[in-house]
Amino acid sequence: MHRKMGGSEKYAPVHAALKKFLFYHDLPKLLLHVEYVSLIDAQNRVLAKNLASPINVPPFLRAIMDGYAIKSNDTKAASKKRPVLLEIIGRITAGQDRRYKVKPGKAVAIATGARIPEDADAVVMVEQTEQEDGKVKVFKEIKHGVNVASKGGDVKKGRVLLEKGTWLTPQDVGLAASLGTNKVPVFKRPRVAIFSTGDELAEPGSKLHGASIFESNRYMISSMVQEYGGEAIDLGICRDDRDLISSKLREALRFDLTVVSGGTSVGETDYLPDLVNSMGKPGLLVRGVAVKPGSPTGLGIVNDKPVILCPGHPVSSFVAFYIFGRPLLFKMLQTEGPPSANLVAKMRKGISVHKNMRTCVRVKVVRKGNGSSSYYLADPVSASGASLLSTLTNSNGMVIVDNKNRLRRGEKVEVIPLRNITRTC
Amino acid sequence: MHRKMGGSEKYAPVHAALKKFLFYHDLPKLLLHVEYVSLIDAQNRVLAKNLASPINVPPFLRAIMDGYAIKSNDTKAASKKRPVLLEIIGRITAGQDRRYKVKPGKAVAIATGARIPEDADAVVMVEQTEQEDGKVKVFKEIKHGVNVASKGGDVKKGRVLLEKGTWLTPQDVGLAASLGTNKVPVFKRPRVAIFSTGDELAEPGSKLHGASIFESNRYMISSMVQEYGGEAIDLGICRDDRDLISSKLREALRFDLTVVSGGTSVGETDYLPDLVNSMGKPGLLVRGVAVKPGSPTGLGIVNDKPVILCPGHPVSSFVAFYIFGRPLLFKMLQTEGPPSANLVAKMRKGISVHKNMRTCVRVKVVRKGNGSSSYYLADPVSASGASLLSTLTNSNGMVIVDNKNRLRRGEKVEVIPLRNITRTC
Repeated sequence: MHRKMGGSEKYAPVHAALKKFLFYHDLPKLLLHVEYVSLIDAQNRVLAKNLASPINVPPFLRAIMDGYAIKSNDTKAASKKRPVLLEIIGRITAGQDRRYKVKPGKAVAIATGARIPEDADAVVMVEQTEQEDGKVKVFKEIKHGVNVASKGGDVKKGRVLLEKGTWLTPQDVGLAASLGTNKVPVFKRPRVAIFSTGDELAEPGSKLHGASIFESNRYMISSMVQEYGGEAIDLGICRDDRDLISSKLREALRFDLTVVSGGTSVGETDYLPDLVNSMGKPGLLVRGVAVKPGSPTGLGIVNDKPVILCPGHPVSSFVAFYIFGRPLLFKMLQTEGPPSANLVAKMRKGISVHKNMRTCVRVKVVRKGNGSSSYYLADPVSASGASLLSTLTNSNGMVIVDNKNRLRRGEKVEVIPLRNITRTC
Repeated sequence: MHRKMGGSEKYAPVHAALKKFLFYHDLPKLLLHVEYVSLIDAQNRVLAKNLASPINVPPFLRAIMDGYAIKSNDTKAASKKRPVLLEIIGRITAGQDRRYKVKPGKAVAIATGARIPEDADAVVMVEQTEQEDGKVKVFKEIKHGVNVASKGGDVKKGRVLLEKGTWLTPQDVGLAASLGTNKVPVFKRPRVAIFSTGDELAEPGSKLHGASIFESNRYMISSMVQEYGGEAIDLGICRDDRDLISSKLREALRFDLTVVSGGTSVGETDYLPDLVNSMGKPGLLVRGVAVKPGSPTGLGIVNDKPVILCPGHPVSSFVAFYIFGRPLLFKMLQTEGPPSANLVAKMRKGISVHKNMRTCVRVKVVRKGNGSSSYYLADPVSASGASLLSTLTNSNGMVIVDNKNRLRRGEKVEVIPLRNITRTC
């Protein structure tokens, strides 16, 4: 069914809806379990415990220059004219575990990164010395600690380097490895059950019969769920039948989050809002949100399990899940989400928006100029043919507009990237 | 080994190095094979063929309003005072495949999205009618085609909706589904063989012995490879031994791209540049790049297979793979990469950079102000303790600086996001 909101419905402002839904008092009960994954699987997972360094970095006194490990005391009063002569008793490169004891009058040749031998307390740079018959001449006083990185100087054992809730990037994975960690505690992915309702829906890959259309929302939302850190559980298409929808909803509620596409409005065959209310407390919290597209969105909680009813219209469905599903998953995962930034662009054309609704304007952004004098221009993408996702896939950005009836030409807007807008080489 | 460039080495400018490496004439030979994946696995893969619509959208004439499907001819001269009376012969909702023939004087009640019945050519909105005894009164002339979406009006069969090279997003997956596609042609992921060299390297999870340190670059680069659309093949750690490195390199060259961490400089035990040259033409193209950090980077091609020699220093290694590995993978995949944007910020502090080198400055960006008056300030992150990845993981952005010896306080810079900088609700 194509869904339409009943005209008398009152829309909840987006912020009020988010507050009601995300900060419902029982949501903290949704704590996710912790699992340990190997480094190679840790990327794009969310750290479930603070990662503290189990070691000092460096783990030992370390040479930071090529030269000679010495006792600084030995160089007292050394000068160009009266160099000190020290006997070279050995040689250490980085990673080598050779043990020397540097007694007075002795030196050990040492490479950058190598461990300082016992009783040495400074490194004289090779450039400041001369070598002669197994001895090294030092021409100046070298102070205690010179060219030596102290144990734990970079990181003290126990210091927290990555906080719980960090969305793990390649560099975080590298950092964990450098501390010797090979298994990382991450939150289990929230399991999101998804089904679509509608007699007109046909599975992609099948043949369209009669007046049916291909189902797309389930696939789009499943992909969004994965993108935002969840695991998508596909419960398929459900016919417009109260009993079938009821048992499908019951099945879905066993998972962490339920998303239903279609069945959100007030038509004859829209059973979902009632069913959500009948299955547990508090039931439907929000029915109809002041957002364009996406106004027929419903939000509920059934016995601590959140439920999102997405409109059947695919662009509306995208917006509904972006605005409500994304922050919910991030909240469950206690994270800020993956690396990203919005870009500021100037509108190249004006466009009317709905004053009392949040409007999600799809735009095409182009870069103008070069280097530091470059700037970005945004053209609104026509919303005609909006029943099709191509208005979204033809855009490379989305602008969220609140409390305005118009975006003016030349106005600065913040663009959420939907494609790679600023390629960096 | 800690690696140092020989001081006499001449650095290639980044753009020259990129050009030499990425546009080497034999690289087009690296065409990736195509495979078909199901919709649910298509996200973050790269489309290998244009996706043209196999159907008209809508696939039939479709009502775009609730109302009555009629013959427009029947309403000629209809007016408020002299409405036309049409007999309602049936009712169609969206997705229903009921067949009616609308003869003169007849009408079919129709819902938005439903298929227009045979011989009807317009829809009169329900609000413009009155119903009475199984008949509908029409009070105005309705023109041919009113409230009817034409077959293929949104998308004509055969129109290309997604181009080859598109990095598939959730909305692209949804679009493909809506066209009935259930398998999508994508490029096979480029297989990237990665190994590290160095006697001092220990596997994370093992115990540090003597003067060893934990290997981290392989894990970081593997994660980057996955992030940029490739498949990481882990060939482990290789001791600093010419024969071992030689056979490891030979093994790696069977894959699409080889990345070696460490062994890039001119120390006694750095065999790699020579080995790369000895294994095939043209060999090492670039040795030493004018980038900070990352200058000891080497770039080569061996019998059509690209090879990247990354410095052992982990932050350098990140920069080297970001600057050379990322665009190479995108080029192999013929893509612009995943959705992303850079953000413009003002430097809150000045910082010196290397005039003749590209400098990658790590920054911490904060948002100031609210709504459309908000702006971003960037603080450079101290590079002390740079041997550790924490200078990178403590940053939320990276600024690339070319041809300057200083970033001034207040200067505008483009920030590549390393964390989520602008969280949108």
